[in-house]
Amino acid sequence: SAVSSRSMASKTQVGFVGLGNMGSPMAKNLLKHGYPVIATDVFPESCKELQELGAQILDSPAEVADKADRIITMLPSSPNVIEVYTGPNGILKKVKKGSLLIDSSTIDPAVSKEMALAAEKMGAVFMDAPVSGGVGAASSGKLTFMVGGVEEEFTAAKELLSCMGANVVYCGQVGTGQAAKICNNMLLAIGMIGTAETMNLGIRLGLDPKLLTKILNMSSGRCWSSDTYNPVPGVMEGVPSANNYQGGFGTTLMAKDLGLAQNTATNTKTPILLGSLAHQIFRMMCARGYAGKDFSSVFQFLREEEGQ
Amino acid sequence: SAVSSRSMASKTQVGFVGLGNMGSPMAKNLLKHGYPVIATDVFPESCKELQELGAQILDSPAEVADKADRIITMLPSSPNVIEVYTGPNGILKKVKKGSLLIDSSTIDPAVSKEMALAAEKMGAVFMDAPVSGGVGAASSGKLTFMVGGVEEEFTAAKELLSCMGANVVYCGQVGTGQAAKICNNMLLAIGMIGTAETMNLGIRLGLDPKLLTKILNMSSGRCWSSDTYNPVPGVMEGVPSANNYQGGFGTTLMAKDLGLAQNTATNTKTPILLGSLAHQIFRMMCARGYAGKDFSSVFQFLREEEGQ
Amino acid sequence: SAVSSRSMASKTQVGFVGLGNMGSPMAKNLLKHGYPVIATDVFPESCKELQELGAQILDSPAEVADKADRIITMLPSSPNVIEVYTGPNGILKKVKKGSLLIDSSTIDPAVSKEMALAAEKMGAVFMDAPVSGGVGAASSGKLTFMVGGVEEEFTAAKELLSCMGANVVYCGQVGTGQAAKICNNMLLAIGMIGTAETMNLGIRLGLDPKLLTKILNMSSGRCWSSDTYNPVPGVMEGVPSANNYQGGFGTTLMAKDLGLAQNTATNTKTPILLGSLAHQIFRMMCARGYAGKDFSSVFQFLREEEGQ
Amino acid sequence: SAVSSRSMASKTQVGFVGLGNMGSPMAKNLLKHGYPVIATDVFPESCKELQELGAQILDSPAEVADKADRIITMLPSSPNVIEVYTGPNGILKKVKKGSLLIDSSTIDPAVSKEMALAAEKMGAVFMDAPVSGGVGAASSGKLTFMVGGVEEEFTAAKELLSCMGANVVYCGQVGTGQAAKICNNMLLAIGMIGTAETMNLGIRLGLDPKLLTKILNMSSGRCWSSDTYNPVPGVMEGVPSANNYQGGFGTTLMAKDLGLAQNTATNTKTPILLGSLAHQIFRMMCARGYAGKDFSSVFQFLREEEGQ
Repeated sequence: SAVSSRSMASKTQVGFVGLGNMGSPMAKNLLKHGYPVIATDVFPESCKELQELGAQILDSPAEVADKADRIITMLPSSPNVIEVYTGPNGILKKVKKGSLLIDSSTIDPAVSKEMALAAEKMGAVFMDAPVSGGVGAASSGKLTFMVGGVEEEFTAAKELLSCMGANVVYCGQVGTGQAAKICNNMLLAIGMIGTAETMNLGIRLGLDPKLLTKILNMSSGRCWSSDTYNPVPGVMEGVPSANNYQGGFGTTLMAKDLGLAQNTATNTKTPILLGSLAHQIFRMMCARGYAGKDFSSVFQFLREEEGQ
Repeated sequence: SAVSSRSMASKTQVGFVGLGNMGSPMAKNLLKHGYPVIATDVFPESCKELQELGAQILDSPAEVADKADRIITMLPSSPNVIEVYTGPNGILKKVKKGSLLIDSSTIDPAVSKEMALAAEKMGAVFMDAPVSGGVGAASSGKLTFMVGGVEEEFTAAKELLSCMGANVVYCGQVGTGQAAKICNNMLLAIGMIGTAETMNLGIRLGLDPKLLTKILNMSSGRCWSSDTYNPVPGVMEGVPSANNYQGGFGTTLMAKDLGLAQNTATNTKTPILLGSLAHQIFRMMCARGYAGKDFSSVFQFLREEEGQ
Repeated sequence: SAVSSRSMASKTQVGFVGLGNMGSPMAKNLLKHGYPVIATDVFPESCKELQELGAQILDSPAEVADKADRIITMLPSSPNVIEVYTGPNGILKKVKKGSLLIDSSTIDPAVSKEMALAAEKMGAVFMDAPVSGGVGAASSGKLTFMVGGVEEEFTAAKELLSCMGANVVYCGQVGTGQAAKICNNMLLAIGMIGTAETMNLGIRLGLDPKLLTKILNMSSGRCWSSDTYNPVPGVMEGVPSANNYQGGFGTTLMAKDLGLAQNTATNTKTPILLGSLAHQIFRMMCARGYAGKDFSSVFQFLREEEGQ
Repeated sequence: SAVSSRSMASKTQVGFVGLGNMGSPMAKNLLKHGYPVIATDVFPESCKELQELGAQILDSPAEVADKADRIITMLPSSPNVIEVYTGPNGILKKVKKGSLLIDSSTIDPAVSKEMALAAEKMGAVFMDAPVSGGVGAASSGKLTFMVGGVEEEFTAAKELLSCMGANVVYCGQVGTGQAAKICNNMLLAIGMIGTAETMNLGIRLGLDPKLLTKILNMSSGRCWSSDTYNPVPGVMEGVPSANNYQGGFGTTLMAKDLGLAQNTATNTKTPILLGSLAHQIFRMMCARGYAGKDFSSVFQFLREEEGQ
């Protein structure tokens, strides 16, 4: 079949749509692994560096789809994905039968399902494969991919994704990659705010923050935010809290992911009390000057005092 | 001084007040380590087993204080502690100068400070040393003690507490043991509810709970409630969720500890948004039939469906 | 123009799509006021009563649009509205130039805007006009309509809506009718839960509920839920709390409206801390057997005790 | 009995302890009504004005109790009340049998009960009578008193309180005055935050704030904060939002009252989900520069934008 012939087609051209902070280093890693890359982006200047490295740059997703039967997309949000796939110059306008379309954007799983349906009508296969890990992990090829879609295509997807990530996890039907990403980030957000509140309370009660961290980490309060990404300046090195909350994972991005979690919860009628409140807290932080700081700056947000 | 003579007095009598589910196995471990124990409890029947094992049973805390210059107390809540120390038959009525008084109850740190002040007036030393770990850890001598009080007395306290626990951590001035306990349990509560919400949402979105657990535990959503005490039946063995939420740490006790966290936060004017909401959620669970179940039953509480 | 000729066309045919619990009595009131009604519904049995009263029943929204240039729609949720307007047998397939389309459903204002745009492309005018007031107000013609759309068309819309409602309020551009409805219901939900929590706390503190109600209503705690729709059984007559929370405004419907509020807040990046938590509380109530009760049953939900 | 002889003793001396912003105008109103006032305050300068108006100033509450058998106290918080009644120079040191002691402070109802018990032991009667209404109402004698205590003494209390307030409401046993005050302010806080969130959301959705206010006030969203004390600048005149949130009821005071509500809820195991979150929101505002502004500034707090 078309599909199997494409799966065999190792080291033939791979399309890439979306050359932003994440997409650009991801596409570079494909080049490094010897794949010819055909790319496009709405901002032509984003394409220059990749072009110099040997990628072919085209004008639209449709043109990319005309040339490559394996395409990866990495876009900011649901409307961009809808446009890139189903818009007037979208991938599906020219997609070849049997093509494999992998979307690594973080979007609403309901949109992933819609795209999969639309792709299926054109004889193509769509998988969602959002990532965890930031720009650093994208550059070093250490991303984690959470992949949703038909299981028979997972091997073909993994072949490409392994060039860009250290872990490629199959999650189930289309949309479950997004679901896993959203779930992880919701629990991460809750754990981070919880850690910030707890550290702040402990300090107010006279505890040394390093000692409290040590106690939490050997006890049942332990979590990733307490033992790996502690939000209190002076407790750990090499984390955003040690660098005035610069770098890392921005509060705006966390608020966006929690908005997705909220939408999926509302649509599935699932109660998420702490998840909702976490969303609101990061939303409020965005409204009060913390939009560009790492999300662990919630410690600073809670801590500020009268008169400061 | 009186203090140093007492500190030297290894294997002389140790007083014990409060022989409940926790206190009783703790006192037994003191006996096992060769300490003569002089004990009392408001319920005489609680004393029988210890008496058969060789402990001397007296009628009141005051009488215990008259005979022993090292006393451990293990009581349900602040009012009991106040009564046992400063009541008409309380320890401080007959305490000897230089005595070491260690309170392992979980109470408001402000009460610990009051007791320390009252003890100091009588020439005695008070330390707070609440525990983490339940009845099982109390029986096997594997408790963790978080100790607050004057640092010079920590060695003397540790000598006794080591008979009953695997970890004895010095936290700082009086009250910081309570503070550490309260902080850990608040973060634990937040992590548990967060894990329950996340697992429920993931399942609704089509993810297999074991797979989602695996993904969280290799990612930034990882926490003690996801990797050690998972609240979803079928994911782990040997945890309360595998046994209809029996045993473990009761919802009522968690609600009590969160009430302490809320009080200390209110008194120190510390914002704890998720901590407050976690308190309210466990409080609501107590009102709806979950009081006696393990606190991880919050998964079941959130999950129940219309018509069930 | 086509529009003004239609506006003049008093007592000519009016189309009506959606003859459910609300739509049916609304359409009857149009008949009572002498308007010939041409109606349709996906469930043919819903049409019988109206047919007997003289309405003409057709098979699809498209056919209604083919005959009437003023159409009112009253549907359960956004997907239904999208289908009825833009589906294969939808109104816009056969809409006449200059038609006035009024949607009284409660939906996401973003969908109202989409429908208005789609209608505009066909030369028609779309207005959103959601209602407050339940089945009783629909029957007695006492609904309140909150209307969004181009101001020049408001008079024409009001002519029809006045047959079905006591108040017709112009809110602004398309979508603002929905916005006003959503805002009111969010504040209503917050006030109701707040009243329930407050009454419950007061009762626990020894206050008589009637006396507490009186005090609140003469003070700054006063709100519609305390003075008009008190959730505590025995305080007022003629409200759902006096009738085991039957009738009134169902918890499911409130949860749906709060879901819309949450969506619009997420999309506009607006923090709604209490609004979000209110949404989650009603969602949790739906999951625990309160779906069909009036939303004031939140008092009962919070109140239930251990052992009951 | 002593009590009845005192009740008859109209226009004999009245003691007053606590001459702060509220106490001072209250005591003046007693003078205006012809009562000889014997007063004291920890800050001597607070007494000058009253002294010039004819009041007798003494050095301590005990001395006041030695001379007057009807005493009113108006103090900032629970510890002050405990000191003024039971401290070494407190009222109960010299209180006459049959004295009537009325505390208008806003404190924990549990403390009111303790004071009542302590007074009873000395043969005196203690009532709690917290007020609603601020400094303006205190000056003009328009306060509302919520009174708890033995019903037979209410007439005697009302005689005095009527000089200072427009409404004197009997609430039940000791502590219920505080309970009523706390309950009202909790619902007020929830209504205010809810109104602020709702107005902000409506404005973001394109509604005019005056129009939205009008719609809410004719609908079920109506509450005191929407119709009497609207938090949006430009909607109403003569309220703090019209004056940069100056004057009115300070955020710190609201946070304090919500702390009391939280304490009583924790102690009575009452779930208050919105009440708790409201407490945390005002607490956070205090930490971020809003401590001295009127509590309706929560609108501004929620509204601030990125970059501002």
